[in-house]
Amino acid sequence: MSRWAIGIDLGGTAIKAAVVMEESGILTERSIPTETASGPAGVVVQLASIISDLYRGALLTLDPERFAGTGLGAPGAVDAEKGVLSYPPNLPGWTIFALRDELQSCLKREENLEIPVILENDANAAALGEAVFGAGHSFRDFLLVTLGTGVGGGIILNRKLYRGPNGTAGELGFMIIDFEGEAVHAGIRGTIEGLIGKEQIVALARRMIEASPTGSSVGLLCNHDYTRLSPRHLEKAALEGDELSLAVWNRVGSILGVGLASVVALMDIRKFVIGGGISAAGNLVFTPALEQIRRSTLPPMHEGLELVPARLGNKAGVYGAAALCFGGT
Amino acid sequence: MSRWAIGIDLGGTAIKAAVVMEESGILTERSIPTETASGPAGVVVQLASIISDLYRGALLTLDPERFAGTGLGAPGAVDAEKGVLSYPPNLPGWTIFALRDELQSCLKREENLEIPVILENDANAAALGEAVFGAGHSFRDFLLVTLGTGVGGGIILNRKLYRGPNGTAGELGFMIIDFEGEAVHAGIRGTIEGLIGKEQIVALARRMIEASPTGSSVGLLCNHDYTRLSPRHLEKAALEGDELSLAVWNRVGSILGVGLASVVALMDIRKFVIGGGISAAGNLVFTPALEQIRRSTLPPMHEGLELVPARLGNKAGVYGAAALCFGGT
Repeated sequence: MSRWAIGIDLGGTAIKAAVVMEESGILTERSIPTETASGPAGVVVQLASIISDLYRGALLTLDPERFAGTGLGAPGAVDAEKGVLSYPPNLPGWTIFALRDELQSCLKREENLEIPVILENDANAAALGEAVFGAGHSFRDFLLVTLGTGVGGGIILNRKLYRGPNGTAGELGFMIIDFEGEAVHAGIRGTIEGLIGKEQIVALARRMIEASPTGSSVGLLCNHDYTRLSPRHLEKAALEGDELSLAVWNRVGSILGVGLASVVALMDIRKFVIGGGISAAGNLVFTPALEQIRRSTLPPMHEGLELVPARLGNKAGVYGAAALCFGGT
Repeated sequence: MSRWAIGIDLGGTAIKAAVVMEESGILTERSIPTETASGPAGVVVQLASIISDLYRGALLTLDPERFAGTGLGAPGAVDAEKGVLSYPPNLPGWTIFALRDELQSCLKREENLEIPVILENDANAAALGEAVFGAGHSFRDFLLVTLGTGVGGGIILNRKLYRGPNGTAGELGFMIIDFEGEAVHAGIRGTIEGLIGKEQIVALARRMIEASPTGSSVGLLCNHDYTRLSPRHLEKAALEGDELSLAVWNRVGSILGVGLASVVALMDIRKFVIGGGISAAGNLVFTPALEQIRRSTLPPMHEGLELVPARLGNKAGVYGAAALCFGGT
């Protein structure tokens, strides 16, 4: 019988959790709103309760002897060894918190359960999820790129998570590709996230529309209220052939490609799995990105270059958190 | 008694070789001009002859039982497992060559010696040299930066060489920091090497001198013949207080710092060992580089940032080549 684990993705908006089978993937899943107002202690109670629910439910059909534990992906800097989470963005009021030990204690105290918990950064967990259950399965080494509000990354080397010496590796969005440019984001000039984060893509489109003499059909999609303009509108218009929207995506892909060329040069990684909400634009971004990687790297580095869409969508986090328990790292 | 090995650094100008003791470093060393005109076969004979000389000389005082083998660092892409060197720059006429096996055969045929050879890329060997015998000894993880004609790098993770999935990792000079800038180098826009390679530093200084209303005292050092201007002149003038030369080094350091900030973001490496001819400028480059890394990274990544000069100079290659034989990787 397959081993099973509980995977949890703790976010600022929702706690997603699932019972994951090592062989076949998600068996059951839950999602509840994160009670951010109740602070770390309140969130720990929420986590313990959802783990307890899933665990007791699973025992109706699954063998407790085959239970591999609980993995928990959380935003912010994670010391995986100590189980400590530091300054998670989107969780107001959290500073430095021994999340793993607090959760294990709470499980014992409130739910009478002794369950081991493994804590990991959420982007790392997502990368591991794609590595074990998703688009990265056939790659020994790859970078998971998350295109969304921000631009994130998770690195898999030799099928294992690469955390870096201090556990903060994979911050693709904070690589710098335009050090003399105008974009300053989080106080740093010319970062990838500062150029193609979600808001920055929309702002780029607005600038291009303003500067365009011929205009764009994307205006029809947002009733010419450009404060409502979204990447979805740009995606739709581009697929309908709108030149300006196509130009926006070409530029987004090209900027991403420049960044990934630096990853090729430094780490010799040539496989890229692209996820996150913005990646819904698919080949509108992927094609120019791959072309740009080729233009921006030396020919001996072109062999084996691949850029593929992520497969697990917003479930990569729970998959990866569970994979932590299967020794996927 | 200490183990010993022969380390060789094959360059386009010279072959440097040494007998290296595991505990105490270089015992004896040689340097001969590389006979590039004689092609791969001729260079292999040169290598075999210098190895034989060093080996037989060493046996006068050293125990053959403690001999760990020969390590060979070479420019270009190296497949360390297969012992194959591909397209080494500065070795005209070389394409893809089974250097390790050819050298072992030649040692047997010409010198009647059965000596195992380990082949490695020269920048990687230099990084390993600094890791085992030099400035990187106290760092578990670091990037060796080589500032010279080009800008190179070698990555040490967990005290071992990080070669990358295809053996081409560490190409710091081909990371892109100015994708919309004017500098195009080896066909790629905005690379670090295209901005602060040796020639590019001199060209930057010339542009700044031309644009300067007040001029620079560096002209005195090259007899106002700016075709003869060198980084050494700029170093000397800066140390004498010449504002323009100081500004040149500030800019070089700042550009290096931007690139290293991307290394911090992606790999979470926070220790940098700086070598190569240009690194003779020392704090003229190091100080603005470290300041720029801080400006260009998020505060949580500042902890533990260090930037130190390499210690082995142009001997890092032979040290590292020997270290390959001591299981340093």
